[in-house]
Amino acid sequence: MSNLHDSATIIDGLIIAKWERSIFEDMRRGGLTAANCTVSVWEGFSDTVANIADMKKLMRENSELVSLVRSTKDIQDAKQNGKTGIILGFQNAHAFEDNLGYIEAFADMGVRVVQICYNTQNLIGTGCYERDGGLSGFGREAIAEMNRVGIMVDLSHVGGATSEEAILASAKPVCYSHCLPSGLKEHPRNKSDEQLRFIADHGGFIGVTMFPPFLKRGIEATVTDYVEAIDYVINLVGEDCVGVGTDFTQGYDKGFFDWITHDKGRYRQLTKFGTILNPLGIRTIGEFPNLTDAMEKAGWTESRIRKVMGDNWVRTFKEVWGA
Amino acid sequence: MSNLHDSATIIDGLIIAKWERSIFEDMRRGGLTAANCTVSVWEGFSDTVANIADMKKLMRENSELVSLVRSTKDIQDAKQNGKTGIILGFQNAHAFEDNLGYIEAFADMGVRVVQICYNTQNLIGTGCYERDGGLSGFGREAIAEMNRVGIMVDLSHVGGATSEEAILASAKPVCYSHCLPSGLKEHPRNKSDEQLRFIADHGGFIGVTMFPPFLKRGIEATVTDYVEAIDYVINLVGEDCVGVGTDFTQGYDKGFFDWITHDKGRYRQLTKFGTILNPLGIRTIGEFPNLTDAMEKAGWTESRIRKVMGDNWVRTFKEVWGA
Repeated sequence: MSNLHDSATIIDGLIIAKWERSIFEDMRRGGLTAANCTVSVWEGFSDTVANIADMKKLMRENSELVSLVRSTKDIQDAKQNGKTGIILGFQNAHAFEDNLGYIEAFADMGVRVVQICYNTQNLIGTGCYERDGGLSGFGREAIAEMNRVGIMVDLSHVGGATSEEAILASAKPVCYSHCLPSGLKEHPRNKSDEQLRFIADHGGFIGVTMFPPFLKRGIEATVTDYVEAIDYVINLVGEDCVGVGTDFTQGYDKGFFDWITHDKGRYRQLTKFGTILNPLGIRTIGEFPNLTDAMEKAGWTESRIRKVMGDNWVRTFKEVWGA
Repeated sequence: MSNLHDSATIIDGLIIAKWERSIFEDMRRGGLTAANCTVSVWEGFSDTVANIADMKKLMRENSELVSLVRSTKDIQDAKQNGKTGIILGFQNAHAFEDNLGYIEAFADMGVRVVQICYNTQNLIGTGCYERDGGLSGFGREAIAEMNRVGIMVDLSHVGGATSEEAILASAKPVCYSHCLPSGLKEHPRNKSDEQLRFIADHGGFIGVTMFPPFLKRGIEATVTDYVEAIDYVINLVGEDCVGVGTDFTQGYDKGFFDWITHDKGRYRQLTKFGTILNPLGIRTIGEFPNLTDAMEKAGWTESRIRKVMGDNWVRTFKEVWGA
């Protein structure tokens, strides 16, 4: 591990791994200070509460490796204690169901980032894999409540119209926690230069992913391609609102990818990913230090690396969470 | 009761009364052969199943007055037995939640008509009180399943874009079970001449309502105004795809109107109705015979009256239900 990686605050804006001890071990191996960890995609309220309970039990059983993040202070503490901070996040607001009261309940449970739509239409808006009619009236009420209780609005899998309106509707910074520029590859999940500038111009945040189906070179990509993609975004919006959001799916098999690529986990297929193989050099969470190395090799300044690897995320989380 | 009213099959395409014995008694007083009775608006799956159970218990306790309708044969039997047939209906597909399997379950319970959206956005499409992005992919799957199991698609409170796409998507006739023409009064709930022609041209059905806020003369209207509104629709689309859908809210107080006019029953207010007072002459379900009288006075032929008062509904139900 390079000295820089070791001393920096390292934040991953999106991991959806199969939660078990081996993942937490790999997070420690990778020197991760904290990560936004997905605990809900297609699940409704009850199943999501159960997922959160399962995750917290797993965290208790592995408390020498991980700790829960409710504030940026908890991120600092995790760093100091040599643990990885777990930020609970959803990739779909479906778990809110039709009840705005569930939002504060989830905040109480420790949920700090929620993507408002996942791929298709819900009560709030529409995802990026179908025609998008924009943010609903209920969606506006939901965003106001997320702002109030300090849950960050994530727009990665959200459609263009809903995203634009959510950016304008939110009183707090919103994010694409894990996205790639369509300037490098056209894909329904990738964001245009215009969309990336729009979120940045409105105080929002961009976490850059390395999920192979959205990368220009797909499964041929290396960690250098990943750094180039981050560079592309920085060239558009500057280095202060950009971070990392890998989208590691570590530990999952075909059943998982079938589940996430079908509407509600079981209806029509929305997209096909093919083989998932992360970029050479950062195939696993434990290889995270190679990303910092690749940034150093690309000639990035230490200041830029510290910002993009974590400090930008922490500053933005603090604005949204209030602490 | 006129001989004609007494001998005709009288179908009300939409009643959302406060279900209790007195309503069933008034249905008998009004000579109603059958009515589409709302048992779900904002409720999710479990609460809707509970509503259905409550309704069936009430029907068992009053089995000399009412009987359940699962087929048009059950409508004939109700007529013959001097009872009113209860057609179970929803004004919102919210009760389907995210599970297409619930659709057949509801059909098994006897549900025969479901409005796919109520006023606002759900997983299927969008209602008439907010911007409407059209039918979702899940909505197309839901309509195919409703077609398969024989549940009629109702579009009364559905937005224009979603309605048009649902009309095109459905392999079976769909309906506006209770609507008025915007040619007589502009209102978000009323349908334009173009919309009325479009549903008729595609084999669909129009039930005309008399809900005061949507009537030209509001609470000043009489049963004669109601017949004029029905005449307006017949002049547009002919007499074979038109029927009655009163929208009686008999027995309900302000709490109910607050509930139905707020999104999900409790969030932002979508519309204000003011005083609800049904047209003079047909203020209560028991006065239903006055509607037939008013048609006779308006010079309608017996054949047209029989069609509009019930035969058209029965023929269309049979096409959708399969029996």
